[in-house]
Parts: sequence; structure tokens; C-alpha cells
Amino acid sequence: MARRALRYEPDEWADRVRNGGVRAAARLMRMLDDHDPLAFEVMKRVYRSTGRARVLGVTGNPGAGKSTLVTRLIGQFRQARETVGIVAVDPSSPYSGGAILGDRIRMQQFATDPGVFIRSQATRGKLGGLASSTNDVVNVLDAMGYDVVIVETVGVGQDEIDIMKLADTVLVVMVPGYGDDIQTIKAGLLEIADLFVVNKADRHGIDTTLRDLRQLQTLREAHDERWTPPILKTVAVRGDGIPELMQSLQRHRDFLVESGEHDRRRQRRAVLGLVELLSDRIKVRLEQWLSKGGQLEALGAAIAGRERDPYSETEAILGSLLREP
Amino acid sequence: MARRALRYEPDEWADRVRNGGVRAAARLMRMLDDHDPLAFEVMKRVYRSTGRARVLGVTGNPGAGKSTLVTRLIGQFRQARETVGIVAVDPSSPYSGGAILGDRIRMQQFATDPGVFIRSQATRGKLGGLASSTNDVVNVLDAMGYDVVIVETVGVGQDEIDIMKLADTVLVVMVPGYGDDIQTIKAGLLEIADLFVVNKADRHGIDTTLRDLRQLQTLREAHDERWTPPILKTVAVRGDGIPELMQSLQRHRDFLVESGEHDRRRQRRAVLGLVELLSDRIKVRLEQWLSKGGQLEALGAAIAGRERDPYSETEAILGSLLREP
Repeated sequence: MARRALRYEPDEWADRVRNGGVRAAARLMRMLDDHDPLAFEVMKRVYRSTGRARVLGVTGNPGAGKSTLVTRLIGQFRQARETVGIVAVDPSSPYSGGAILGDRIRMQQFATDPGVFIRSQATRGKLGGLASSTNDVVNVLDAMGYDVVIVETVGVGQDEIDIMKLADTVLVVMVPGYGDDIQTIKAGLLEIADLFVVNKADRHGIDTTLRDLRQLQTLREAHDERWTPPILKTVAVRGDGIPELMQSLQRHRDFLVESGEHDRRRQRRAVLGLVELLSDRIKVRLEQWLSKGGQLEALGAAIAGRERDPYSETEAILGSLLREP
Repeated sequence: MARRALRYEPDEWADRVRNGGVRAAARLMRMLDDHDPLAFEVMKRVYRSTGRARVLGVTGNPGAGKSTLVTRLIGQFRQARETVGIVAVDPSSPYSGGAILGDRIRMQQFATDPGVFIRSQATRGKLGGLASSTNDVVNVLDAMGYDVVIVETVGVGQDEIDIMKLADTVLVVMVPGYGDDIQTIKAGLLEIADLFVVNKADRHGIDTTLRDLRQLQTLREAHDERWTPPILKTVAVRGDGIPELMQSLQRHRDFLVESGEHDRRRQRRAVLGLVELLSDRIKVRLEQWLSKGGQLEALGAAIAGRERDPYSETEAILGSLLREP
């Protein structure tokens, strides 16, 4: 009943979200996950209220202490009277309950703070794209009026890199003496990193990590030479280095605005978001269509039995599904 | 010139791949990455020759020693006179050159072995889906006649989990005393793990890791109760535990065949592969179409400027692109 009571008309729903209504927003996010057409109608109406929030991406391998770091950042933004929305795209995120007790305890301090909204993004068994649904949630938080939206992802998959491309500023978090982190950054995250944070900087191996990172900086021809990503040392669990990190974040924000890079990124993000949204919706309609009358299972059996091949089937289905543009 | 000389007719090309032609196969894989229509034609013809290879998935966080473990497995399969194809979906994989010297040296032993084919899968800036192109490469290696195809992924993203679903047997590799691994498995990999391998088992913290893993085993209601994933200890760099791992792999293979799970998985893989291929192709055609005449950039600017919203644009584009099925 409570849920049914929460099905407003699109216009009213959009108003409630724009006014920061938490229940309306949370329900909207759930309906976006379910690909509810009504949620799509609401998003059309709230989108024009987006674009104000500053979007921070925080990524790195498990064990880097991202959640602790994000918790510290939330505290700093709150001290500055900025409201914060968090999207945790992380199956093992404390926000999603997959946490060790310590992380949960750390989050308690924000449980009753109306200036903080935490949403954990389901990553398993999702129909459609992760980057697309993350972008939707960022848009909702943005429309709700949060000053800062922090997107935290774990892992080094292409998904995570695509998600980071939606951010204005990307923090790559690592820990000392964990060489593979460097390998991973070399491979994928280097191009999108705006700030490097070496957390747990009191650990053995910090010097090697810093040296490797400085070497990486010199390899960034591909990247914007107007901004060299600073390397920051933190011990998030103790709060060490957090003020310096906040200053670097502000410096990067100033760079974005003064260089015009901010608009360029927002435009790139709009393009990426559109393509993700389109392919997401197509994939959903495709799976819904294929699932009808078990034709997907029948096709799967024929393909598994090598009576048919997926490449010819794909051509046939595209032919019947797509108009020639 | 050499490359042009390598553009055969689809039928001849398919024959060369089926006969294990390395240059024809390598060229085909590159053209699949480029979404060359000719590659698609070749795949139609080779698909019927697939389905024989046994597909092993190896995943885990960076630093778990997956590459060393895979190298050991290759050695074991080669001793048993089985040919091995490897797909390294790993930006930091030694096979893709992002390796520390030690890994490269370890791979030298197979450089001249015609029974081993190593393909590293580009993950950056790819148009289309990672799982889909990985599936293509697995199909090519399968059609070439390799007895075993090993797919190695790094990271814990949804992409990596989707890729693992293409395998017959999934190995999840971790190291002792790295608690977040357990968190990660809890979150996403638990459902798809067939074997747990604790590598670097001579390290401190092995007992805790084993205890945590045994606890996880009890949480697998969702999973097939006919098979409890064994927990194996290895020190891959020394070769310790590798024969036992090979025995467990054989046991799981026997289970798959005797239980009928093998056919079920092959069918599921066919369904997943078809949906991935379809959405991949649609996404590619979508981006190609949108890129024409810079209309994508124009749309992006209008969306970034909030003159338009991506949700309405998506509806409009789908309306013009998709026939009602």
C-alpha cells in the first residue's frame, strides 16, 4: 500500500524530486532499475534541473580504502555546508551492506544527516548497462539539489572506467606496495585520472609507489598537458592528508572552469550518457522481445546444438528489428 | 601489402581458421575488433566447428597471481598433449605487455610452442561490449581446434562476471590475508565460482582466508547443491598444488557432463552470447549512425545545455530506429 501510495503523476513526481523529496527519489531509483516506463517519464521532467551538482568519481582496487576516504570527504563537504549524494557502484560497498562492521559504524554518523543521501547501485543480474543506470541515479541526485555527487566504483573493469567518464573529477585511489595497482592504472585508469591518492600512506612501500606514479605522469602524452594529476598521500582512517586532498579537488575544479574543460566534459558526458541510455533501452527491449514465448531459449538450444549460428541469427533479428536509418 | 594479401574470401578464410591457421585467425580477431563485416561472414561459417573446446575462466583481483597460475596450467595441459588457447581480458596482463619482467620470462617457454595461442583482449576505447568480443575470440580458438580455452580476466566488474558466465568452469583466485577479496566474492563471484584457488598459500593469513571461504560455501543456497566448490591451495610460482588443481578441474568436468549441467551451461552461454552479440551490433550501428554529420555532437551540446533531455531524445531515436516487433 505504501508503495502504491507513492505512484504520483509524472509532473508531481518530478516536483517532489526537484524539491529533494527522499522517498520520491528513492522510489524513482528503484523504478529506474526495473525499467518502469513511468520512471522514464519522470526523468524527462527532472533532467532540465540537473547539471548543477559537482560530480566526483572515486575508483581503485578493493582494499584501497575508498569507502573510508569517501566517508572523510563527505565529512569535509558537510563541514563546508555542502550537501552530498553518494552512488556506491560497488558490490562489496559498505553502503550496500556487504561490509565489514567497521565500515558500517563509520557510516552511522551520516545516517540521520538530511544533507547526505547514499544510494548503492545493484550490479548483479541487472538488465541493461551499469554506466547508464549510474548516470540515471547521478541525474536524480543532481536534480534533488545535492551540491556534490560522489560516484564510488570498485575494480578495474571497462564498466568502471565508463562510469568514471561521467564524472567531472576522477580520483584514483591506491595503496603502497601493491604493484599490480600501478599495472592496472597504466593499462586503463591513467587516461581518466585527475588526482592520484595513495591511501594507507603510512604503510611500507610508499616510496616505490610514489616513484612509480611519478614515472606514470610522464607517460601521459595522450592527456591534457594543462593539468598534471597531483599525487596525494592520505591515511584516511586517521584523516591524514584529507584537507590537502580537498584543496586539490578545489584546484581541479578551478582548472576545469577556467580552461573550459568543464563544458567539454559535460558535453562528452551528455554524448556518452545518450549512447549508453539508447543501447541500454534497446538491450532491454531486445531481451523482453526475445523472452516472449520462450523463443530466446529455443534459439539458445539451436545455437548450442550448432544447428544455427548466432551471427546469422543476429543479422536476421537486426533486419526485423531495425529500420534502415 | 601483407595485410591486404590476408583478405581471403569468407569460405577460404573459414577453412584456414578451422585448419588452425594462426595468421588467418589473428587477422580475423583484429577484424572482429574493428567490426569488419567480412569478419562477421567468416564467423557465420566457423561457428558450426565450435563447441568442442573446454572453456576455463580464471578471475580474481590484481595481485592474486592469476597469470602465473595460468602459465602453470598451460604447462600441465601441454604435458597431457592438449593444445591451449588463452584469452587475456586483462589490461595489466603479461600477455598484453603490461607485465613485470618476471611474467614475460615465464611466458617465453610457450613463445615457440605451436600448441599454445595467446590473445590479449583490448579493453580500452572499444566500441561495443567486452563480453561479446571475448565470446567471439573464444569461438575462433574453439574453431581452430584448441582442446582447452582459458579466459583470464582481472577485476571484479560486472563485465568480468559476464565474461565468466561464458566458461564451463570458473576458477576464482585469491591470496591470503586480503579481506576485500572475500567481500568481493561475497558480492558477485560467489554465484559463478566452481573452484576457489587460494594462491600464494605460503603467505601469512592463509588460515583466516580458508575459514572465511568455508563460511561462504555455506551461504550458497542459490547455487547448485550437487557441486560444492572445492578450496585449493597453491603456490603457483613454485608449482605447489598445481597437480591437485588439475584433478579438481577434471572432477568438475566429470560433474558437468554426468549431471547434464554441461549442456545447460552451453545453452545458457548460447543465449547470453546471442544477446551480447545483438546489443553489441546494435550499439555499434547506433554510434555509427549518430556520428554521421556530427549529429551526435550537436545533440550532446543541446543535452549538456539542458535545451533537450536525453530521455526524450532516446524515445525519439528508438522510434525512428526500431520497428515494433
